[in-house]
Amino acid sequence: MTIALVTDFGTTDIYSGVMKAVMLGIHPQAQFIDLTHGIEPQNVRQAAFALMNAFQYFPAGTVFLVVVDPGVGSRRRPVAIMAGEYAFVAPDNGVVSYALSQLPEARAVEIAVPETQRTVISRTFHGRDVFAPAAARLALGHALETLGEPVDQLFRLPMPQLIVDGTAVLGEVVHVDRFGNLVTSIGSLRWSAAERLTLTPAFGGISGTVPISAENAQITINDQTITGIRHTYSEAERGGLLALVGSTNYLEISVNQGSAAQRVDAAPGDRVELSAGTM
Amino acid sequence: MTIALVTDFGTTDIYSGVMKAVMLGIHPQAQFIDLTHGIEPQNVRQAAFALMNAFQYFPAGTVFLVVVDPGVGSRRRPVAIMAGEYAFVAPDNGVVSYALSQLPEARAVEIAVPETQRTVISRTFHGRDVFAPAAARLALGHALETLGEPVDQLFRLPMPQLIVDGTAVLGEVVHVDRFGNLVTSIGSLRWSAAERLTLTPAFGGISGTVPISAENAQITINDQTITGIRHTYSEAERGGLLALVGSTNYLEISVNQGSAAQRVDAAPGDRVELSAGTM
Amino acid sequence: MTIALVTDFGTTDIYSGVMKAVMLGIHPQAQFIDLTHGIEPQNVRQAAFALMNAFQYFPAGTVFLVVVDPGVGSRRRPVAIMAGEYAFVAPDNGVVSYALSQLPEARAVEIAVPETQRTVISRTFHGRDVFAPAAARLALGHALETLGEPVDQLFRLPMPQLIVDGTAVLGEVVHVDRFGNLVTSIGSLRWSAAERLTLTPAFGGISGTVPISAENAQITINDQTITGIRHTYSEAERGGLLALVGSTNYLEISVNQGSAAQRVDAAPGDRVELSAGTM
Repeated sequence: MTIALVTDFGTTDIYSGVMKAVMLGIHPQAQFIDLTHGIEPQNVRQAAFALMNAFQYFPAGTVFLVVVDPGVGSRRRPVAIMAGEYAFVAPDNGVVSYALSQLPEARAVEIAVPETQRTVISRTFHGRDVFAPAAARLALGHALETLGEPVDQLFRLPMPQLIVDGTAVLGEVVHVDRFGNLVTSIGSLRWSAAERLTLTPAFGGISGTVPISAENAQITINDQTITGIRHTYSEAERGGLLALVGSTNYLEISVNQGSAAQRVDAAPGDRVELSAGTM
Repeated sequence: MTIALVTDFGTTDIYSGVMKAVMLGIHPQAQFIDLTHGIEPQNVRQAAFALMNAFQYFPAGTVFLVVVDPGVGSRRRPVAIMAGEYAFVAPDNGVVSYALSQLPEARAVEIAVPETQRTVISRTFHGRDVFAPAAARLALGHALETLGEPVDQLFRLPMPQLIVDGTAVLGEVVHVDRFGNLVTSIGSLRWSAAERLTLTPAFGGISGTVPISAENAQITINDQTITGIRHTYSEAERGGLLALVGSTNYLEISVNQGSAAQRVDAAPGDRVELSAGTM
Repeated sequence: MTIALVTDFGTTDIYSGVMKAVMLGIHPQAQFIDLTHGIEPQNVRQAAFALMNAFQYFPAGTVFLVVVDPGVGSRRRPVAIMAGEYAFVAPDNGVVSYALSQLPEARAVEIAVPETQRTVISRTFHGRDVFAPAAARLALGHALETLGEPVDQLFRLPMPQLIVDGTAVLGEVVHVDRFGNLVTSIGSLRWSAAERLTLTPAFGGISGTVPISAENAQITINDQTITGIRHTYSEAERGGLLALVGSTNYLEISVNQGSAAQRVDAAPGDRVELSAGTM
């Protein structure tokens, strides 16, 4: 069964390889997919967003091992979660919460750390000692309840900013990808038949219909304004700044064959406004 | 069956992991080899060169999924290709053309994009929606013809510069590797018995025999001249600049335990001349 | 069977993918774990340390393919080694020696390079032509002795500095990880019941008991002094500098949710002193 990994370990250190080694010891047939080890050190929100945009493409039964854990060794709980047809193993710091917001009822347990483990001096690598073994056992088919005691309430990260006021939408940049595309919190976007944008629930159950046509929409970020929402990068000239609905149905700001992050000097957290413009 | 990936997605974003997820949904036993996700964003030629130097080491039946796609969403066609004992899935922008130049007859189809897919707003991630599913189906044994209609002519990239004039060879730097080795377009090189270099067809069918002995050969790049072609890095002193025939049979310029790219301040496209020197 | 890779090839070039391609040709069921390809170019000692801290987490039977090879093509021998329940394939330059120091008797052979191979002009990619085939054959179950003639003495790297003088321990920084944690040569550390540190053999058989309590211990690096050895990062305030016993039982210097390497401006080789402080 597939185990997909999301960590902030990077690929230079041996940490992710050691987690896989431990899992192979428990589940020799495990199949690993590295979703990313490139989360910024301890950036829980970046990891939560990455996981949310990826998990639904995996086959039913996939176990997600998510280790971005600024509080390692402190009182934050290690948890294992079943939701929909997926399983998640992670610290209870909200790193799974964006994904869970898109899934039906979740069941969670606090992963029991054996007494022997707890008395070991080193408490700094729960990825290896606590999370990896739990992920391997779930992938092997062990029942969630064999891993520990049920947990009622999971920690949830605050949702990215998304305000819909009837004529305009205010959001923020949530991710800058390798190409310099700015992924925003404005989504999931779908055009209605009448060329109006429809916001379907994405973050925190916010939704609504905004009377903005794709052609006249105005997108403002860092004092620059873009008119119109395109279907594809190549609708702008080479080097041209454009807005489009990205592959995960969020509003993206891009430069055709260039970097929008450089062009508008943007970073996660920057404010993005979408309004009707002049019709 | 093995699916080998070449992309410019990097390893920080989730894009390559999502493609694998989609492929596992179609072909749960697929085995993935990451050839590289580190192609410079939208550098089609770098990817073409990387693929050309790698494909022949893979077992027969390997499917290469190559997604470096500056024109995503525009009119460039998604194609699937069978050539020799390999299959390739890629945009028809020449990214596969260097590899194909070393293989016998190729058959190609334009990958049919289902109507439902075409009406979806997002057209920015063909890697996930078009290329990955096609690669998984080929790896599963589906016939090429089931993926779409035959294509007659594939787009071919211009070959790197390589001029052989009987006494000298003019080429260019085509790749700088992690160690700072400068891989040139001068190849495939083989010595004949009489210590003469023989150029066998590599790029664009150029070939010929040049009367250059390994000992007296002069290699000029960025106003620096190297005398002689070595067999191995360690024939130069530590830190010494040298020329040798690299592991893919191209002329390489290297520094023993150092970086030739730094030493001669070179980058892809820089002119390299190989001549007989004084005998 | 699992083949784990440690190289300095990086992940941008095709080198590690080509080694896997060659191994799949020999052993189609091989399962690869990338321990790291991010060793600094030709840093044999960094690779030796990485391998030492990782190998013991892998299942019995794992083959480690370790290619960090400044002397490629020179007289250094390619070797295959069996020790404990593991196999190693590497250049005989000491890159495996730290791992071997923690294992029982080792048997080694010099990998025979077939005559045809030796006459090929290119001698620069032994990873592909010599080491990968040997690793694949061992993973397939071939006996060590089928790969070449026995070797008596393997090259061993000097051990990192570690001096225990009864009241103090002098060591050095051996690794800086992605988080900026400074891993030192002071280990393996275990507290005795009486809160005294016990050094068990780690590097070069050095060991001893030092009368240092965890609470009063003083750690000095680059003119900065830390008092006390913590159990976990979160025992320091956010941004606080601390010392703790890391996940591999070495003394580590860290900043809670920050980078110790930046804070104390440290790099591998920097001197670290652990003493009793004032009691």
